[in-house]
Order: sequence, then structure tokens, then C-alpha cells
Amino acid sequence: MTTRVLVTGTSVRADLLQPLVDAGLTIDNPTHLLSEDELRQRLSSSVAYLLGGDEKASRAALSSAKDLKIVAFLGVGYESFVDATAARDFGIRVTNTPGTLTNSVAEFTIGHLLNCTRRLFLYATEYAAGQAGKEQKQHDLADLHVGIIGLGAIGTRIAEVLRNGFGSRVSYYSRTRKPQTEERLGVAFVSLGELMRMVEVVVVMTPANEQTKGLVGAAEISSAQPGLILINTARAEIVDPRALLAGLESEQLGYASFDGLYDSEPTLTKSLKAFIPAKLMVTGHIGSLTHEARDGMAKKAVQSILNVLKNGRDEYVVNGV
Amino acid sequence: MTTRVLVTGTSVRADLLQPLVDAGLTIDNPTHLLSEDELRQRLSSSVAYLLGGDEKASRAALSSAKDLKIVAFLGVGYESFVDATAARDFGIRVTNTPGTLTNSVAEFTIGHLLNCTRRLFLYATEYAAGQAGKEQKQHDLADLHVGIIGLGAIGTRIAEVLRNGFGSRVSYYSRTRKPQTEERLGVAFVSLGELMRMVEVVVVMTPANEQTKGLVGAAEISSAQPGLILINTARAEIVDPRALLAGLESEQLGYASFDGLYDSEPTLTKSLKAFIPAKLMVTGHIGSLTHEARDGMAKKAVQSILNVLKNGRDEYVVNGV
Repeated sequence: MTTRVLVTGTSVRADLLQPLVDAGLTIDNPTHLLSEDELRQRLSSSVAYLLGGDEKASRAALSSAKDLKIVAFLGVGYESFVDATAARDFGIRVTNTPGTLTNSVAEFTIGHLLNCTRRLFLYATEYAAGQAGKEQKQHDLADLHVGIIGLGAIGTRIAEVLRNGFGSRVSYYSRTRKPQTEERLGVAFVSLGELMRMVEVVVVMTPANEQTKGLVGAAEISSAQPGLILINTARAEIVDPRALLAGLESEQLGYASFDGLYDSEPTLTKSLKAFIPAKLMVTGHIGSLTHEARDGMAKKAVQSILNVLKNGRDEYVVNGV
Repeated sequence: MTTRVLVTGTSVRADLLQPLVDAGLTIDNPTHLLSEDELRQRLSSSVAYLLGGDEKASRAALSSAKDLKIVAFLGVGYESFVDATAARDFGIRVTNTPGTLTNSVAEFTIGHLLNCTRRLFLYATEYAAGQAGKEQKQHDLADLHVGIIGLGAIGTRIAEVLRNGFGSRVSYYSRTRKPQTEERLGVAFVSLGELMRMVEVVVVMTPANEQTKGLVGAAEISSAQPGLILINTARAEIVDPRALLAGLESEQLGYASFDGLYDSEPTLTKSLKAFIPAKLMVTGHIGSLTHEARDGMAKKAVQSILNVLKNGRDEYVVNGV
């Protein structure tokens, strides 16, 4: 039987793979993006696959992986990268690495938030262009009411920093209510409609799925206080792109800040980009781009591979095998 | 006797001046910048002066102000705007408004800090230019050791947010040691030399004076860990401009972030600006530009005027009258 572990992508440091080597496994880490056919070929002689690149572990790619026991996905949202149903059909476990990027994304989001409350990106851009001097008074974060949509691990960490660090008022809307967090941090649960009407700043932090797509739409944005600050460092699609554009055009939105826009909507994205930097700041999907988050993912994925190869199970298996 | 209160500058809202009107005083609020002669003339028939513009209350301007009881300076650093010695000679009290901008500047500084730790300004600029995708992994603030130079009110508030919100390790150097703050927040006092060698991030937050000018110089920057993040939202001059330039050129500094550069050094400032946005972010002296800070100053200055006119004294008198 093969001892090969296929590792794709270039983000995993060699020393973090050492536990696999110590367990007698062989690392195969191609540095280019594998085609489906290349991937199928490599997987046919691999016992584990650490998916850290942009490869798609499709049914076809998995179909001849007779020795493969696990696809360990580096990150949380494996759905676009692994056909988990096909993997289950072949008896291959799929794992992911939740939790490792919580603090990284939360800090990044607070950075976006302070960029909005104090227009740092805008005013630094104007300074660079020799246009400083037109700056407007803003508000202290300590005096603002912040609404968080989605109080999972990241949303909770954001609430912690806002409450314990900045002393902001925080309300939240989430699919499931969190009474212990409410008690511990002094945050209030409200409906999405109420939240949008009450707050001066909204932070979107829900998973992206069919239920959350367009969750913040035209009705939500138009019911808000004029000048609303909207931060979305989760998937762009949770905010309806047309509602975002309309909100920026009408100045209903005072400032918006996103980590990535709408890849499937190039024309709309172009219209949105016209608001940079006056009303919009965008970074390119880098919310979890820290050593802490990425190393944490790699360590977790490596451990999942060791667990599955040794015991046939792991707590992070997502496809019920 | 006159009842006129001269108010200069355009930043004080009329409703905040209402207590003066209620006390039987008359507001004179010219909207343009007064020349020394205009100022002298207006002050000769004023009982109080709320200095909110860029006027200089020089000895000459104060010389014929026979009824003037107080110059209430809007802000902290009155030295460049009021000849406090001349005022004392004429029996005129000078007050300022410390404390009102503490939280505003602290939040602004944390915004600069997160811009550095995650390169938000740089990557948002690259995104806008269609250059996203070259981003490098950074570090979580929670994992960084932050050094604060100057633990006054603002430095202490920054330490609070870092310790209670982000959980960073914090050390400080300050002219006077603060044992109670050390205990309360878990921050450590070290010498300036030690601080510069130990930390990954330095925040400069001392008053600007002859003692602090160039406090962070070539020796301090070159003794630091390579890739040091340097944040100075106090006066630029506390960091030696040549040392800053050398640190950026040699990449000893990973990123620097300032709220204003060196007005008296145009050539050097031009060389520094070449590092924007790759290694440097600069905003234009807007650290306290919030409604909370500015309204707080106006309220405090108005109260000082009322106190001095009624009781002949006020706790914010700075020139020993």
C-alpha cells in the first residue's frame, strides 16, 4: 500500500508536515495548480490528500483513488472544492479545519470597522494625493451601536473585542440565540428587521449558503438609519449586490467595507468599484491571511490525516463516513 | 463693561455656545481667520475668547484687551497658539481642554495599528488598482508584543483596548511609572532601549516637547527586530525623520503609520511619501476628528469661560493666574 500524502498549494510550511514524515508517510507537494486529470492520477497512488490549493476534488478526480482514506481540506468552506458526496460513496473521509481562523478574521473585521468609523483608507488615500484637509468629523466607536449578523465563533469574538475593548453597544441577530453570550458580554438579541433599524454599524458574519444569500437586501438597507456603516468580511453574496449599489448611490450607506466583491457579477462589481475610496473599501479575500490562522489550519489538517490513518476517525469529518 | 465673547474657528456648534448666551453674554463668531490686528481689535472689547481657529493670541494681540478675563483654548497644545506668559502679565487666564480627545485618538491609533498588522490600506489600494493577489501572511495582533511609548491618558486607553479587547502582550516606557495601571492591565514597564529590542509593534504616544523630539531615533530603530511596525499618531517630530526614512529604506521597518508628517521638512517628507502605500500610511492630523472629542472640547471651554467670569477661577487654567 502507498504511503504517499498529496499536498497541494504552496501555503503549508514544510516543518508543519513533519509529523506526517515522522509517521512514515511520504510527502508529494507539487507547486503548480493540478488539472483534474493530474489530480486523479496523483490521488490514485495516495493514501491522504491535504487540499491546500485551488484544485477541485471532483467525483472524477476521486474515482480511481483506491487507497485514499481522507481529503483534509485546509479551511472551512470545503463545499466548492470537494465533492463530499462522491467521497462518501467511495468511503473517503472529508475533513475541514474550523475554528483556526476565528481570531484572525475577527481582528481583520475590527480593522475594517475602524477604517469605516474613521475613514482611514479614504483619508490616507487623499493624503497621498495631496488632498488632505477636507476631512469630516466622525463618531467614536465607543459611542456607536453595532449590530452583528451571525453570532458564530467569529461574530462572538468580534462582540468580545467591541464590548471588552471599545465599550460599544452591541446587538445581534443570529439563527440560534446565544443566552450565555448575551449574559457574558452584555449583548442583546433582536430580529434582523429591528437590528437594521436600530444600529449605526452592521457587521455581516454568517456562513454563505442558500439561506443567507441576499440576507441583507434592499428592504434591510432602506430601513436603516441614513449613513449606515456596512461591513461584510464574510462572503459578499450575503449582501444583495444591487441593494449595496443602490445604498451607495442614495447615500443611505455612509460607508461600506468588504473583503472581496461579487465574482459572478463583473458589471455590477465595476459599478461598485467606482465608489472606492469615497464610500467603499475592498480587500481581496484576505480575512484569514495570518500565520496564526494558516498554521493553525495546517496543524489541524495534519492531525486529521494522522487520526484517520491510525484510527479510521476524526472529529472534523464532515461527510458522515 | 463688555459682554462680548469672541469665538474663532468654525468647528463649534451654535447650540454648544448656548450656555454663554443664557448667562447674558454676546457671541461674536467671525468665520474667517483673523489677522493679528483684527484679533487685537476684537479682543479689546471682549470679556472672553474661545480660541477655536488658527489665530495666534500673541502679546501684541492681547496688549489692549483691557476687559479680557480668559483665553479658552480649544484643545490641549495651546503653546503654539497663546502667549501664556503675556496673558499672565495682563492678568488673563488661559485654559485648555485636556482629556476630551482621549478615546477618539486611542481608537484612531488602534485603527492605524490594525492597518499596519494587516496592511489594509496597502491591500485595499492594490485591490482598487486591480493588483490584488500578492498579499503576504501577517500576524494576529493577539500574538504580537506591543510597546507603548508614553502612558498618559491616551496611551493608557490604547493599552486597555489591547489588553482587554485583543489580548495582546503590552509593555510600555513612560517618563513616570504607573504601578496601578501595570497591575490593573497587566502591562510591564521597561526602559526605552529594552522596549525597542523586545516588541514587534511600537506605538508612540508622548506629548511633543524638547525632551521628546527625536526620542525614537536611529539607535532605537536599528536596535529593533527587523520588520518592526511603527505607529505614530502623536506629533511626527517625536520620531526622527531621517531615522524613519532610513528604517523604511533598509526594511528594518516593516510598516509605519503616521497622523501627519514633518511640515518643517518638505524635502524629507517628499522622500517619505514615496513609501506610501507599500510601507507607509499617513493621515492628515485627524486623530481627534470626532464629534465626541470636538463637542467635549467645546463644552469644556464654555464651562471654563463661565467659571472664570463667575468665580475668577477654573481647574483648567494653565498659566498660573
